[in-house]
Amino acid sequence: MDALKERIRKEGRVKGQGILKVDSFLNHQLDVALFEEMGEAFAKRFAGHGINKILTIETSGIAIATSTARYFDYCPVVFAKKYVSLNLDNDIYSSDVYSYTKQQSYKIMVSKKYLNENDRVLIIDDFLANGKAVEGIMDIVNQAGATLIGVGIAIEKGFQGGGAILREQGIALESLAIVDEMSEEKGIIFRD
Amino acid sequence: MDALKERIRKEGRVKGQGILKVDSFLNHQLDVALFEEMGEAFAKRFAGHGINKILTIETSGIAIATSTARYFDYCPVVFAKKYVSLNLDNDIYSSDVYSYTKQQSYKIMVSKKYLNENDRVLIIDDFLANGKAVEGIMDIVNQAGATLIGVGIAIEKGFQGGGAILREQGIALESLAIVDEMSEEKGIIFRD
Repeated sequence: MDALKERIRKEGRVKGQGILKVDSFLNHQLDVALFEEMGEAFAKRFAGHGINKILTIETSGIAIATSTARYFDYCPVVFAKKYVSLNLDNDIYSSDVYSYTKQQSYKIMVSKKYLNENDRVLIIDDFLANGKAVEGIMDIVNQAGATLIGVGIAIEKGFQGGGAILREQGIALESLAIVDEMSEEKGIIFRD
Repeated sequence: MDALKERIRKEGRVKGQGILKVDSFLNHQLDVALFEEMGEAFAKRFAGHGINKILTIETSGIAIATSTARYFDYCPVVFAKKYVSLNLDNDIYSSDVYSYTKQQSYKIMVSKKYLNENDRVLIIDDFLANGKAVEGIMDIVNQAGATLIGVGIAIEKGFQGGGAILREQGIALESLAIVDEMSEEKGIIFRD
């Protein structure tokens, strides 16, 4: 998606250890107009599949999922929680996600009330790197007996392997921008 | 706001210790159509003040702030972070917020890049109880030399005092639903 790639070129900053900072528009300050364009792009790519629920993970996926829902007939958005809170029931689906960045696992949780076998699910997230977070959400979709239609990602770090693994499994993965290579010297190289 | 009050009446569940669970539409599963109605209601209440930035706190405020931004000319949304992450710079404003529920303080953080003296700020959050989170955000607005225009809240727990304290300070506080009393026996009583 050209608008997103342009924005990454303009404002993204490459840091060591494979970090691409896009906090000026994607995950600290948020550009809602861009998110709506992204939502529209997801709607085109996943049209005709009867998607009736959008799943994401707190925190950075929430705003993109919110903007995307309006292009799927305002279907409900559910975000998997990373932190136990009073808002969460005891009756939950949960899965463990390994974070390479933090070198430890964390739990993601979805109340059983908000996901079931009638749901046709689109997973939305801001980044795809090693794919562990998406695999965790897919595990929860599975536990609920819901149908996974596809996965929509804003920025895929193509060099980190998560996308390749999901595509090999036959998952309909649509990333709006795929970074194949990046470094402080060379800048950011997108997949065509 | 009638649509929100109706929804709280229909789906809200009162738990002990002043907890109102609205996770079916506000803070776990999200009803984006309702959030856009709420955004429109905030826009009416805060029209004509040149608001050019919306501030909120992760996690539950993000989706409401996102839906609200479209009614303020798609101004940027910035969410204060509760958890240190690689996306955050070292150069931050921060404030300590005391949580009565958890009986401990946590830090909220905003990068200095995304808040400055030219910003005319609307603070958005899902709940107002004791007001400590909003006071923390106001402290950050102050540190940045930005102008606080007002505070827009979805659900104010009127019996917990935060709203009274803010209004006494002359803060333009607009809550779309104010709960004055609630119990498992009596149900939920709204302020007129």
